[in-house]
Amino acid sequence: MTMLDAHDSVRALDWRGDCLMLLDQRGLPAREEWIECRDAGAVAEAIRALVVRGAPAIGVAAAYGLVLAARALATLGRAIDGDALAPARAVLAASRPTAVNLFNALARMDAALARQASAADPDAVTDALEAEARAIDAEDLAANRRMGELGAALVEPGSGVLTHCNTGSLATAGFGTALGVIRAGYASGRVCEVYACETRPWLQGARLTMWELLRDGIPARLIADSAGAHLMACGRVRWLIVGADRICANGDTANKIGTRQLAIAARYHGVRVMVVAPTSTLDFGTVTGDAIEIELRDGRELTELSSVSTAAPGSEAWNPVFDVTPAALIDAIVTERGVVEHPTAEALRAAFG
Amino acid sequence: MTMLDAHDSVRALDWRGDCLMLLDQRGLPAREEWIECRDAGAVAEAIRALVVRGAPAIGVAAAYGLVLAARALATLGRAIDGDALAPARAVLAASRPTAVNLFNALARMDAALARQASAADPDAVTDALEAEARAIDAEDLAANRRMGELGAALVEPGSGVLTHCNTGSLATAGFGTALGVIRAGYASGRVCEVYACETRPWLQGARLTMWELLRDGIPARLIADSAGAHLMACGRVRWLIVGADRICANGDTANKIGTRQLAIAARYHGVRVMVVAPTSTLDFGTVTGDAIEIELRDGRELTELSSVSTAAPGSEAWNPVFDVTPAALIDAIVTERGVVEHPTAEALRAAFG
Repeated sequence: MTMLDAHDSVRALDWRGDCLMLLDQRGLPAREEWIECRDAGAVAEAIRALVVRGAPAIGVAAAYGLVLAARALATLGRAIDGDALAPARAVLAASRPTAVNLFNALARMDAALARQASAADPDAVTDALEAEARAIDAEDLAANRRMGELGAALVEPGSGVLTHCNTGSLATAGFGTALGVIRAGYASGRVCEVYACETRPWLQGARLTMWELLRDGIPARLIADSAGAHLMACGRVRWLIVGADRICANGDTANKIGTRQLAIAARYHGVRVMVVAPTSTLDFGTVTGDAIEIELRDGRELTELSSVSTAAPGSEAWNPVFDVTPAALIDAIVTERGVVEHPTAEALRAAFG
Repeated sequence: MTMLDAHDSVRALDWRGDCLMLLDQRGLPAREEWIECRDAGAVAEAIRALVVRGAPAIGVAAAYGLVLAARALATLGRAIDGDALAPARAVLAASRPTAVNLFNALARMDAALARQASAADPDAVTDALEAEARAIDAEDLAANRRMGELGAALVEPGSGVLTHCNTGSLATAGFGTALGVIRAGYASGRVCEVYACETRPWLQGARLTMWELLRDGIPARLIADSAGAHLMACGRVRWLIVGADRICANGDTANKIGTRQLAIAARYHGVRVMVVAPTSTLDFGTVTGDAIEIELRDGRELTELSSVSTAAPGSEAWNPVFDVTPAALIDAIVTERGVVEHPTAEALRAAFG
């Protein structure tokens, strides 16, 4: 029996005290392989290479990465302070630019570090950092369960829904954000059928979301990323339910490339749009979506698939992997601290500021 | 030197009098293999299996398919009339349901047959049918060159444009419809850069459009189907230029899945939408897009790619391969007989009725 056979054990991260085990999501669902990260550099590289992905999961992984850096310093008997941790922190911060959870997790670790006396025993500092990382991890799981309840309550019984990318157990500390709402909604009869976009170029929807939905026995069908508007025109879905990598002060939301296009189509067809994300995804320091740096990745992600060439030889590709959905297209932002419908800067500040 | 090395010879169909050679587009760009069709059934199977694709090319292929059926009857010394040709005609008509060019080509062949005296010599009837098929073929190529001029004239000099699927030499008798406009526009300096959607599930954009654009030396970049809205938000394109499989009396247009979604995004961003198609694509008998049958294909087209599994094992897929773009989202319909801006039933009837 593998670690993934028992339903409740589906997690992409496994903290073992001296190392972080990461389920290599590049190989799923064909291969279930775990990668052992023994230092912060290995964690950062795993984030960059998409071994671990999903904004909340990245935040949790980065926090544990900093614990590994602290533990390495403690082993050498060196003092653990901001300066000593700076190199590890920098390499973790540089691993993915768009997900704000990463930076929020690192900021929480900074604060935990600051709470330690500067002369504290390195092992005690490390223990405090580990406790903070475990708290980030546990709070994310609890937040997802709460968001599942809150989001599902917005969905009319018997609804079909559309989701994009993977926002499930694999993308978070567990249960999922948008997929958590779908799980909770299916359990309560509000969601009757799920359509999942395959989510090129990395096929997170086809590989990971379908894998999670099949595993849970939730009726689900895969669609091409281009088929969302036709699906809506056919009246098959009432909600588009997605996660977020960063939510700006005004509600503009960065998420997987394609979310903007689906949200525009949803508005055109009268399908509602729900963004599900923990408050750690909120970034009041970024005023609007125009200020969000959009990660451009290697074009080969579009021209090759499992080393099969998928495009004419010599093709150049433009491969932005996130886009921004304007707040005006979002009907509800669901967090663990409550729901904001028709998000604006004022409403978000009042709810979560 | 293969048949495809000389620029002007790029054609997907090669009529040899006693057989129709079809460039097997399933293997492009990796393999350039030709399939020899010696009877109507083989042509129909080639259409169904996507050896040949693109609405105009399908029409030309079906016309030659009917010539092969007539030739077979003539060889047996049998009379060639509607009854004798009915089985071949039926199998050709059933090969793809959405493209109206197929039915228009068969109707032209019916009319050519009707012009022959019922007692005519079978060889003379066959020759008349062959002449009609050659005319359909030659007229499509001429129409494409004319549409290229007319469509390019609408594009401001130095524009970036976005296209979807493949509408080039491979999809037509030659030069292309939407890609013909892009070719003509690049030659005249109106188009400076092309973005091509990869066009899941069959990757016609990545495999075929990029192949044609690279071959012509036109600056082109591949994007994920989901990246169109972000591309438009970045201000990189002024026009979305696409082909059509069927244009209804009111201007509603059936085209490759994803066109509707891109057209909705284009309207949202102030990007204009051009549909380029010969008048053989017009279907005045279909009043609005609601009446168009949308072809659903095997879900395995989404869950497998070149026998590599791209989705979780056991995934079901919903795989409509066309959608309908409402006329209200189309800024211009370009045909070989002229351009209709802001198409309506009245405008289309006045121009082409």
